[in-house]
Amino acid sequence: MRKRSFADINCPIAQTLELIGEWWTLLIIRNAFCGMCRFDDFQRHLDISTNILSARLQRLVASGILLRQPAPDDGRAVEYTLTDKGRALYPVLLAITQWGETWAPHPDGARLQLLERASGQPVAGLAAVSHDGRSLPLADIDLQPGPAADAKTHHLARLRQQQAKG
Amino acid sequence: MRKRSFADINCPIAQTLELIGEWWTLLIIRNAFCGMCRFDDFQRHLDISTNILSARLQRLVASGILLRQPAPDDGRAVEYTLTDKGRALYPVLLAITQWGETWAPHPDGARLQLLERASGQPVAGLAAVSHDGRSLPLADIDLQPGPAADAKTHHLARLRQQQAKG
Repeated sequence: MRKRSFADINCPIAQTLELIGEWWTLLIIRNAFCGMCRFDDFQRHLDISTNILSARLQRLVASGILLRQPAPDDGRAVEYTLTDKGRALYPVLLAITQWGETWAPHPDGARLQLLERASGQPVAGLAAVSHDGRSLPLADIDLQPGPAADAKTHHLARLRQQQAKG
Repeated sequence: MRKRSFADINCPIAQTLELIGEWWTLLIIRNAFCGMCRFDDFQRHLDISTNILSARLQRLVASGILLRQPAPDDGRAVEYTLTDKGRALYPVLLAITQWGETWAPHPDGARLQLLERASGQPVAGLAAVSHDGRSLPLADIDLQPGPAADAKTHHLARLRQQQAKG
């Protein structure tokens, strides 16, 4: 059975999942962030079937997340590299990494550490930046319907308000 | 074909996707964040088949992300609520929301806005907090292998270093 598309769900989370939510896709993006760019390298590193890898790469190119172009050093070879739209997924990867290290940890310690590049020190956590440049704990951030929200989003927002009062 | 499990991939991103990466799962979690807790409400709001919803909820309960318990006001009804492990996914939802609003936008504007709860102002973006409390742009954060990293993770890290030098 073909999986139902989320394209008609008017929600930024559904729209993002529509583009990057298929099985394998975020692992392909993870590897692309590390500079992996050749089909065979993805295939070997992920141990993924060639038809699934091919479908996922095609979809990422069609979505503008990966750019497909001839390799600079060998015009017969093809390379896949992240576009600006793809590189903008870095916060998503960081948030997922942090959750996985905290809530699905390995007994021997971290597999991946979030480090401050300049100091090499582990970061304490993720935060938001206010409109005037203050650092805000993520718990102080609210998700509220905007001008393009539909009835389903407004329904969720009302539930959330009731929950906050309750 | 049963989808390949990521359980044997020693990476926090793969481990997280193993728990929340199935189609529909993050939309169920989105709704749970808004206080939705009944099977029928999820089913109607998401327009999802009962067997898929049932499988996803069971998996989330087994993973410790949702708690399944009798409704306080009606012991024959069952409610699903987020545990601490589930609520810890908030940064993931915020990062995905922000990406979706920026890179898969609606022509009429935002569907969901990230607002500072106290002021109601839109947040400027996500950031990290350093070990000594400074706000760090996410571009200043590096992902580096930790003590539990395997050969595949070290391979990716070497690629990334080469990329940074190139």
